[in-house]
Order: sequence, then C-alpha cells, then structure tokens
Amino acid sequence: MIAAGETLRVMREQKPLVHQITNYVVMNETANATLALGALPVMAHAVEEVEEMAGIASSLVINIGTLSSHWVEAMLLAGRAAAARRIPVVLDPVGVGATEYRTATARRILDQIEVTVLRGNAGEVATLVGAQAEVRGVESIGAGIEPAELARAAAQRLGVIASATGPVDHVSDGARVLAVSNGHELLAAVTGTGCISSALTGCFLAAKPAEPLEAAAEALAAFGVAAEDAAAGAQGPGTFHARLYDALYALDPATLDRRIRIEEL
Amino acid sequence: MIAAGETLRVMREQKPLVHQITNYVVMNETANATLALGALPVMAHAVEEVEEMAGIASSLVINIGTLSSHWVEAMLLAGRAAAARRIPVVLDPVGVGATEYRTATARRILDQIEVTVLRGNAGEVATLVGAQAEVRGVESIGAGIEPAELARAAAQRLGVIASATGPVDHVSDGARVLAVSNGHELLAAVTGTGCISSALTGCFLAAKPAEPLEAAAEALAAFGVAAEDAAAGAQGPGTFHARLYDALYALDPATLDRRIRIEEL
Amino acid sequence: MIAAGETLRVMREQKPLVHQITNYVVMNETANATLALGALPVMAHAVEEVEEMAGIASSLVINIGTLSSHWVEAMLLAGRAAAARRIPVVLDPVGVGATEYRTATARRILDQIEVTVLRGNAGEVATLVGAQAEVRGVESIGAGIEPAELARAAAQRLGVIASATGPVDHVSDGARVLAVSNGHELLAAVTGTGCISSALTGCFLAAKPAEPLEAAAEALAAFGVAAEDAAAGAQGPGTFHARLYDALYALDPATLDRRIRIEEL
Repeated sequence: MIAAGETLRVMREQKPLVHQITNYVVMNETANATLALGALPVMAHAVEEVEEMAGIASSLVINIGTLSSHWVEAMLLAGRAAAARRIPVVLDPVGVGATEYRTATARRILDQIEVTVLRGNAGEVATLVGAQAEVRGVESIGAGIEPAELARAAAQRLGVIASATGPVDHVSDGARVLAVSNGHELLAAVTGTGCISSALTGCFLAAKPAEPLEAAAEALAAFGVAAEDAAAGAQGPGTFHARLYDALYALDPATLDRRIRIEEL
Repeated sequence: MIAAGETLRVMREQKPLVHQITNYVVMNETANATLALGALPVMAHAVEEVEEMAGIASSLVINIGTLSSHWVEAMLLAGRAAAARRIPVVLDPVGVGATEYRTATARRILDQIEVTVLRGNAGEVATLVGAQAEVRGVESIGAGIEPAELARAAAQRLGVIASATGPVDHVSDGARVLAVSNGHELLAAVTGTGCISSALTGCFLAAKPAEPLEAAAEALAAFGVAAEDAAAGAQGPGTFHARLYDALYALDPATLDRRIRIEEL
Repeated sequence: MIAAGETLRVMREQKPLVHQITNYVVMNETANATLALGALPVMAHAVEEVEEMAGIASSLVINIGTLSSHWVEAMLLAGRAAAARRIPVVLDPVGVGATEYRTATARRILDQIEVTVLRGNAGEVATLVGAQAEVRGVESIGAGIEPAELARAAAQRLGVIASATGPVDHVSDGARVLAVSNGHELLAAVTGTGCISSALTGCFLAAKPAEPLEAAAEALAAFGVAAEDAAAGAQGPGTFHARLYDALYALDPATLDRRIRIEEL
C-alpha cells in the first residue's frame, strides 16, 4: 500500500544504515541527501571491508557511475553479502550503453547478485532490456519504447523492480506499473540527481522492505515533492541544489501523502 | 594560552599549506573550509608524491573515511615524512569500530606514525581506547564512558591530544581537559562536518604548533562559532552548508575570543 | 573572431558531450558547471572504457589534481583516442611544480598527446616553460615573468594554446595574445574554480573547434561574467559558489558579448 508519510516516519525513527558504493562525482551529494531525509549513509568500497559493512547495513546501493575493476569486485562482494542477509539492493546502471565496459558490468551485477530495484533513466533501462536507446555519456536522450511498457518489460526480463525515471517516472514489478509525476525540471540541471533518487530508493526500501514496489515509487515521489519545494524560491540550479537538502530535511510525514502523485496504470 | 583570534590572524597571514589525505566524500568540502578559513589546502594521495607534498606542508591531516590499500600505504608514507619534519599530524579515524579493516588501519597509523591530534566522535575515540561504543557505519551512537574522561583516557593511552567531538567537545592532553560548547545541531545534518573539523584542526595546529592542546580546542570553537553564524538565516542543512563557508570566511580575529566557549574542566 | 554569445548558443543547441578525467576534489563541481552552462559532462577514468568514451565525446579535459598511476595511464589512452578523432583536448596541470611526480606527469602528457589548450595558473604555466615560479601545493604564488609574455612563451615552446589565468587571464597561440579581464576575487576563495575554467574551456572548444584561441578566451570571459553575477548578492564563498551555477545557467547569448572584456594585446 502506498503510504509514503508512514514509510518516512518509520525511517526517521529507525535511522537505517544505507551502504552506498557509488561514484566519485556524487558521493557527497547522495550522503547528504540520505542524511537530510533521515537515514544514515555509509560509503565504503574496499574489498577488505564491504562485506562487513553490508553486513550491518539495512540496504545496499550500487552505482556504476565511475567504474574501475577494484570497485566492481567490491560491488559483487557487497551484493552477495547483502543477498545472504536478504537486505534490499538497488542498482543504478549509470551510463550503461555508453561504453561496453559499463554495459558488461551492469549485466554482470544483474546476473550475479540479487538486485531488488533497478533505478535508471529510460535510456539506461532500455539498454538493459535490449530495446533501442540513445545514451550520450551518462545522459539518456531517448528510448524507442513507451515508458510504462519499458518498466514492465525490464521488470519481467531482469527479475527486478524496474524504476525508470524521466519527466514521469514508471515503477513496475512486471505486473503492476506505478507512474510518479512529482518532480521539477531543474533536477535535470544538477548532476547526480538520478544518483540521489537511487540513494533515496535505498532509504525507503530499508524502511519498507516487504513492499519494494511501493517503497521505490514512494522514494521517487518524496524526492519529487522535495524538488518542487526546492524550486520555489531557487534562482537556478545552484541555489536549487542547496535548497534540495533543506526540502528533504523538511519533508513532513503528516502531509506527504497529500502531495505525492502516484497513479497505478 | 587560549587565543583563537590571534591564531586565526597568524594563520591568515602565513597561509600555511595543509596537506590532506582524506576521503572521497568530503574532499571538496574540507578543501573549501580550509580555504575559507584562510589556509591553503592540498589534496595528494599518490605514493609517488605524498612524501614530497608532506615535505612542503605545515601540517598533515589523515582521514580514513573511504579506505583502500593504496591509500593506507600513502598515509603511512606521508605520516613518516611529516614526523621527520616535526609538523603536526591530525588523524580522523572515520567509522573505526564499524569494520575490522577500519579499526586495524587506525591502530596501524597510531602505532607507526606520530599523531599529534586524534579527532573523532565519541564512539570512534571510545573504540580506540577499548571502551564500549556503538558505531553505526560512520555515525557514533554512544559511548559507555563520560566524555571528559574519555578524552583524558584516550590522550593517556594513545599518547596524543584527544579531541572527541559531540554536543560538547572535549580536548585533552592526558592531564588537562578543555570543553568546547560552541556549535549548532545542524552540523549533524550535513555529512563531513566531522571531517571539516579535523581539517580545521590541521589549520590551527599549523599556525600554533607549540600549543597543540589549545590549537585543537580553538579550531573546534572557531568552527562552532561559524556554525552558529551559518545557522542564523539558514532554512535547513543545504543552505546551512553553503553559509558555513561564508561564516568561516567572515570569522573576525578581533571578536572571536569573545564568542568562543572553551572551559577548562 | 570573438563571438562568445554565438558560441554559447551553438553549444546549448548541440549539447556536446565533454569527457572529463579530473580530480576527486572537483568532479561534482566541474560536472555541474558543464551542465549549468549547457553542455553534457561525462566522467570516466577506467582504462577499460576511456578510449570508447573519448570516442563519443566532442572534447576531452584532463586534470591532474589528484594523480595516481592508473589514472595517468587512462589519461594517455583517452588523449590518444581524442587525437585520433581530432577532438580538442584541454590539459589542466594542477599543482605542477609542487612535486616531481606532477611535473613529470604533465610533461609526459604534453609529450605524448596533442594538447589543444593548456589551462593553468601563472605559476603552473611558468613551471612548464622553465621560468621561475612559486607554487605552494596547488596555489600559484607568483611567476617571475610578465603574464602576457608567459602565455606567448608557453604557447610557442609547448605547441599549445596557452591559457594562463590570474587577476587578468592571458590566452595565446604563440603569435597573438588575448587578455581577459572578467572575473571576481571570490573565485580565489572557492576550491576548484580553476578546474571549472578548464572544464568550461572544453565546452567552448567543443562548440567552436576551428578557433581554439578565441574559444579558450571566450570560455574564461563567460565564466568571469558568471562570477560577476554570482558575486552580486553573495555573502561569502559558500553562497557565491551556489550562485555560480545559477549564473552559468542564466548566461544570455544575446547579451554576453556586451559584457565580456577581451582585449588583444
């Protein structure tokens, strides 16, 4: 059941530890978003410690934005440790399709570890289901498939909850599709907002592990509401970015459900 | 003698180079805080250059927040180069206690290099003195020892100035204990503010190397004053974070001593 | 011909992909500046993918701010791939002169790949032409040569467009020298603004590859105009920094040429 306010309330009470193996570009930003929302971030990527860290975390977020071989090894180790404990795992396949290395790594992770939610933009998700997609670097330009169908197909073929973000986000478990229409266009002018949405998905999953479809949609809706609040009064992407953490921190569990726009298609 | 304004004045005049081997999450933030305060940051971690860089620096800050083996090697090399030149060394044992790798690395650094100031939260410092502590990821939840005693015990057992931060900070050389009560609760809502306090400790030590106990306490007090200024007018952790650099930049040596709250216990 | 507004207009229409292999400290900042200006950043440094990524990019920016051996290898691979496709390459020799490793690496890159624009502060550029320079860490304190002559000499000796920034910037192809006097002193209080100017140079070169001297000067002038706008209303380096992205985003192609101050010496 969609109940974003209640999930947020539980999260702030439990303060789950969200282990993030993410890219160099956004580490500070995803940690700050996690903290502002009310969970506890921890960044650790050494093969010497990732299994132990995943072993005390409530969810794991893997993001391939700035890959290299040692990091991939750590992602796989952490992912297996997370699977062994049955904690939720989010995969953000940043830039998949742009290079063979990214595509192969994302597939390897999907093959070898149990991913709960795949969170990517439409082009990235389309690449992974073998649909036509245009990805330029880490930007998705377009996918040759209708977005709700894309999410459903990705969920079915990859065995995950597929969370494909865009002007409207689509989240599917292969049967149901939830469309989330909160958000603001300034999100596209700040780097790493996709990565932040993946981190926040990890936070919501940690607080509501039994309903990953709903948790993933609630995370995107809550982030979208924060973006709407941040945009009011922002003078551009820089002040919007600073205000985004203010808005996440100020999200009110009591009113959140009145503001989210999640529709089952 | 406590004279934070004078230390700040000297620092801005000398612009000491503060070599930081720190974690990926906070590099930009600790560099910006160092620069806003009035010192010069330099980040360098390659084994090929850390000794030479430490050789031209006025202090060295080592932070284990996102460890890996090459970085540990570089930390030890730089630490020895710093010790050879008798420049102050700050160690921030981020997340020690959360994984065996972090604990072992922090102990190895404490064993092999001459650390001037150990700056950590209460749980981290407690872990290193063998007291009961609860550390979740990189957050200290609590330590089963009274904080002034914790700082004194850490200083005595580890042979360092112990700087244990929390709602009130406690800095000890094993004999004396200084309690610092400046600060603001929004600091806990921004990632890396502990790391920033370690970086600023390095700046103050560089300007006042002969009195490390006082310099370490002055650094925390000055950072706390800046946090108080930043919080006035902030709308949450994001705007607070941006205003923190404004406030560090605006710290006034002429009035700083009237605003700091350092008490000898 | 100097026509910064037109270059900006073309860039925003084409949205060129700018591949950046840069340092850990500024990755988020250079990506956000690139995006705010209107181009698309991509950060990728793995030897497994840099050639392929450079192969789809419109320009490449190499920045040696936090070097290590794997990264140097990737820089050389990407640089050769860029040269093979004749896309512009910017080199930012951060901290060259501070350590032997940085100096040797910068020279190696200049020797082995075809650098279009060398963008550094006066001390860094002076180090590379063998002039007397004082570099402290990554800060240039001074160079014992008049800046216009420095740019001209660097261009001639190194076979690049030399872009030496300071209170007034000087850009030369060895024959002509353009002086750019836009900017604001708060730029020096924020870490990575030099790196940002290199990234934006990559953006302008991508939009105007046939006139690299003009494109490099236009990039610095546009960044300087944005800094002037950001400073109006800023309360210090933190709010200035946030407002800098607002200002880059708001740069108006229609009025930019009336505001830039580029003089041919």
